[in-house]
Amino acid sequence: MAKEMIVNPYDVQGDVDYARLGKEFGIKPLDEKLLKRIEKIAGEVHPYLRRGIFFAHRDLEKFLDDYENGKKVFLYTGCGPSGPIHLGHYTIWSFTKWLQDKFGIELWFQFTDDEKFLYKNKTFEEIQGWTKENMLDVIAIGFDPKKTHFLVDTQHAGIMYPEAVKVSKKITFSTIKASFGFNDSNNIGSIFYTAMQTVPIFLPSVLSGEKQRCLIPLAVDQDPHFRISRDVVEKLGHYKPSIIHSKFMSPLTGVDSKGSSSNPDKMVLMTDNAKTIKKKINKHAFSGGKETVEEHREKGGDVNSDVSCQWLRYFEEDDEKLAEIYEKYSKGELLSGEIKAMLIEKLTKALGDHNKRRAGAEKLIDKFVYKN
Amino acid sequence: MAKEMIVNPYDVQGDVDYARLGKEFGIKPLDEKLLKRIEKIAGEVHPYLRRGIFFAHRDLEKFLDDYENGKKVFLYTGCGPSGPIHLGHYTIWSFTKWLQDKFGIELWFQFTDDEKFLYKNKTFEEIQGWTKENMLDVIAIGFDPKKTHFLVDTQHAGIMYPEAVKVSKKITFSTIKASFGFNDSNNIGSIFYTAMQTVPIFLPSVLSGEKQRCLIPLAVDQDPHFRISRDVVEKLGHYKPSIIHSKFMSPLTGVDSKGSSSNPDKMVLMTDNAKTIKKKINKHAFSGGKETVEEHREKGGDVNSDVSCQWLRYFEEDDEKLAEIYEKYSKGELLSGEIKAMLIEKLTKALGDHNKRRAGAEKLIDKFVYKN
Repeated sequence: MAKEMIVNPYDVQGDVDYARLGKEFGIKPLDEKLLKRIEKIAGEVHPYLRRGIFFAHRDLEKFLDDYENGKKVFLYTGCGPSGPIHLGHYTIWSFTKWLQDKFGIELWFQFTDDEKFLYKNKTFEEIQGWTKENMLDVIAIGFDPKKTHFLVDTQHAGIMYPEAVKVSKKITFSTIKASFGFNDSNNIGSIFYTAMQTVPIFLPSVLSGEKQRCLIPLAVDQDPHFRISRDVVEKLGHYKPSIIHSKFMSPLTGVDSKGSSSNPDKMVLMTDNAKTIKKKINKHAFSGGKETVEEHREKGGDVNSDVSCQWLRYFEEDDEKLAEIYEKYSKGELLSGEIKAMLIEKLTKALGDHNKRRAGAEKLIDKFVYKN
Repeated sequence: MAKEMIVNPYDVQGDVDYARLGKEFGIKPLDEKLLKRIEKIAGEVHPYLRRGIFFAHRDLEKFLDDYENGKKVFLYTGCGPSGPIHLGHYTIWSFTKWLQDKFGIELWFQFTDDEKFLYKNKTFEEIQGWTKENMLDVIAIGFDPKKTHFLVDTQHAGIMYPEAVKVSKKITFSTIKASFGFNDSNNIGSIFYTAMQTVPIFLPSVLSGEKQRCLIPLAVDQDPHFRISRDVVEKLGHYKPSIIHSKFMSPLTGVDSKGSSSNPDKMVLMTDNAKTIKKKINKHAFSGGKETVEEHREKGGDVNSDVSCQWLRYFEEDDEKLAEIYEKYSKGELLSGEIKAMLIEKLTKALGDHNKRRAGAEKLIDKFVYKN
């Protein structure tokens, strides 16, 4: 029997059926009309949009309406600092950077250090260490320091907690139980926490006195937080956030689950060097190829289950080239090892560039952290 | 059948049996030995101690040990700002002022504006208004501005929330349910809140880097917050707080329940003028006298059920005089109306003095609010 599908910020289990998930969550597919509107603004359509990696949304039309009408809008995304950053984070933030560049708008970036402390078996100090480490990776993405504001929950509690209190009054524990699968043995900080994640939706409006709509790029498991938030913030006089949802980047071990930094062998970390990247891909990347070279040449490989093929969707920007690779792999003209080599090359380049930027990131932290 | 006794910060019901409550809460009676130790330090024993108004404690010995050994200790009490201050608050804070004066120590005074917003059907702005109003009454008590620090939960969240997060990780919703009678329909802010009330127990230690023990004077219904806190703060490396518990001041309408500001006719408010005081006492103070003057003269009145007699325990400092009044009332030599007149005189004087100080309090707020 198939394992039951569970998708929430604290638990992802089973084979994720995105069509079913979309229906259950009540989110809409990203259609051609929306992609055209984005193209008109951005001058291009990001590969992740063309390829259905970002596949769904809530109220994206309203965000685009406001933008087109010259109203101030902003981006909001974040990071839970409890371990090293991996490619799953990197790809969502790269897309977020593209949005910032193309739309020319502000990004509020939340580091949920309280959340990670409350949910993980780590000390407060360990989480603070990861917060700083993760900041370096976020800065290395290349966000505009003049238009990007870091919020760290425990460092910005002075402005965030009073707003979180207003949010929390409108959410019962019943709602939290239903959304996150909690029970009475959860700690009371973790129960309160979703109120803190709601605040950046409207904090820029409160701080500036100008009501602004935001767009949240996120991995779909984060949607339950904002499903709760959307009703609440409207009751508080703010705009519901617009959301654009990405599928999970699969771990190296297979396309049927979610990447995570808890097992570093299953994911490529941003700090992995060329040697480690090569080793991880060659050793762990699940192959869609056949048992023997002869059989593979004859019957061809399976693009959909081959993790390297799937990961190339994130790193090979040229649509024609990707299609050609897929065709040749399906026909057995390309071997799994050859696909792996292509992926290794792409990743080595991308992560090499990232780590060059990361090396100069520490001195920029101060420019990014929002001044209370 | 007697109504079930419920005593927690959010619900007080039934006839309060303090002996039984002490056993259920696991708090110890204030004994002669402890009063002697206090007398040795203070040079006197406050009437509220002599008369059993403060009747129980937790770890008071340890607080006195530390004080006597020259270690730094402090007082912590607070106010939930959702309405006008009444005599119930005033008497606890007067006693707290006496402790501050006699021990010469710092007082950390918490305004739990988040709590009241979360529990009451009032807006955030209304609660902020009450916070300011209540501050005036607290200042009018006469605390030493150099040794008194106001913490307002939403204004001091920058230093309080990160510590509350550490506390909250060690408290489950099961514990909250058992302590406060909550259920799944409670809002998540109210569930988290007790963590904020825990913070002032150790915040002065964190801010100064010097581990200090505190003494919390409170009405006994607040004990459940700290019953939870005591175990938690010790796990975080801080001292368990010492606590000294007062009985409830009864409302005018009868000695069998708890005073509250929700029905202003049942309590004398600090802002009541001489005319209102007179009217409230004469009209609402439950009389322990007999039906007719003749019967009263013959059989005498009941000191224990006569609210004016009971309230005189708070305002007639002279033990001999109070004993004489009680004796004469019991014998029918004094009428209820005469007791009322004595109480009115005492209250008019006390509240008149209070309101003179209150009139000059606003310009002192800044001296009292802790500078983040």
